[in-house]
Amino acid sequence: MKYPSTILNLIECFKKLPGIGERTAERLALSIIKMDDDVVSLFSKSLKDVKTKIRRCECCNNLSEDNLCEICKDKSRNKSLLCVVDDPKNVILFEKLNIFDGYYHVLDGLISPIDGINPEDINIDSLINHVKKNNIEELILALKPSIEGETTSLYISKLLDDSKIKITKIAHGIPIGADIDYVDSLTLEMALENRMDISPNKLS
Amino acid sequence: MKYPSTILNLIECFKKLPGIGERTAERLALSIIKMDDDVVSLFSKSLKDVKTKIRRCECCNNLSEDNLCEICKDKSRNKSLLCVVDDPKNVILFEKLNIFDGYYHVLDGLISPIDGINPEDINIDSLINHVKKNNIEELILALKPSIEGETTSLYISKLLDDSKIKITKIAHGIPIGADIDYVDSLTLEMALENRMDISPNKLS
Repeated sequence: MKYPSTILNLIECFKKLPGIGERTAERLALSIIKMDDDVVSLFSKSLKDVKTKIRRCECCNNLSEDNLCEICKDKSRNKSLLCVVDDPKNVILFEKLNIFDGYYHVLDGLISPIDGINPEDINIDSLINHVKKNNIEELILALKPSIEGETTSLYISKLLDDSKIKITKIAHGIPIGADIDYVDSLTLEMALENRMDISPNKLS
Repeated sequence: MKYPSTILNLIECFKKLPGIGERTAERLALSIIKMDDDVVSLFSKSLKDVKTKIRRCECCNNLSEDNLCEICKDKSRNKSLLCVVDDPKNVILFEKLNIFDGYYHVLDGLISPIDGINPEDINIDSLINHVKKNNIEELILALKPSIEGETTSLYISKLLDDSKIKITKIAHGIPIGADIDYVDSLTLEMALENRMDISPNKLS
């Protein structure tokens, strides 16, 4: 005897989610049975809503319910700064911290030939178009410090070689609060390479 | 800026599932966006189906789509054995292993005064009725080896004090393959207490 087919179907659905295995899917599916009717109805509706209502911002490719996302709609931000991120999640991360007031561009992936992801598979074309059409002074690349991230950063900066735009990359180094002993060698190497001058005459 | 409200709603729904925190809920909600339309439709439908179609078996309280569950419908099983479990999950566990051919009774909880769960809150009454009305020879208590499990086992056996039914409890001891060094003291104590006689004259 197995579970009734409606439960088996739901277990299969949960298993399709990232990081959810057989056992967890079973636990989650069974927990639904004990939930209130209206909570489950809302859950069921929310799933459909996300799929039908969420689209990509025409300007920056961020997640949005309208043609333009909330950030692109906001005309009070600094138009001269454009921050390039890999994932819409990173936009939210920056916004939560309230540390950046420019605009964003979401690539939705990183160049990775080994996974068959080429430059044309991610939103680089629209980025270059956006940069060339708008009066952007600084393009900040905030991509993962991985081979894919570095490749993508390099590719973008090459494409903008002939423009006068300033291209920067967020700093990689020892995380604040981390013990140097426990930091991996590549991070330590980068931290040494990107060392900053803090001599008194520089600071004054 | 936060996520669009449809995404926030879905994140909140995922957070209601057991063991799913803020970060995981966010990851799961975002993964839905990338899923195929029909997979999400099926997911949405499955959630509703589980809530509307799944009920409890009238006889044993197991999960079922009909009045009687698949096991209670099966007349070929051993009617003299009744195995008492806490959760419908345990029925599936026993059935997968194919080690028991009697019937089950699902309590759906264990007596736990500290959590406000009294005997009348779990399906003990229907169990006692079932046992008294049917010709059951052995009642096997397969409950958790916790204080709640032991309390519930004791409570059930007291209620059946005057019946001639044989009441057994599944064995607790060292798991097969486990190293005695790593077993907790209570398990070791139980394993010692419930030691079996394997002297040659007993075995022959």
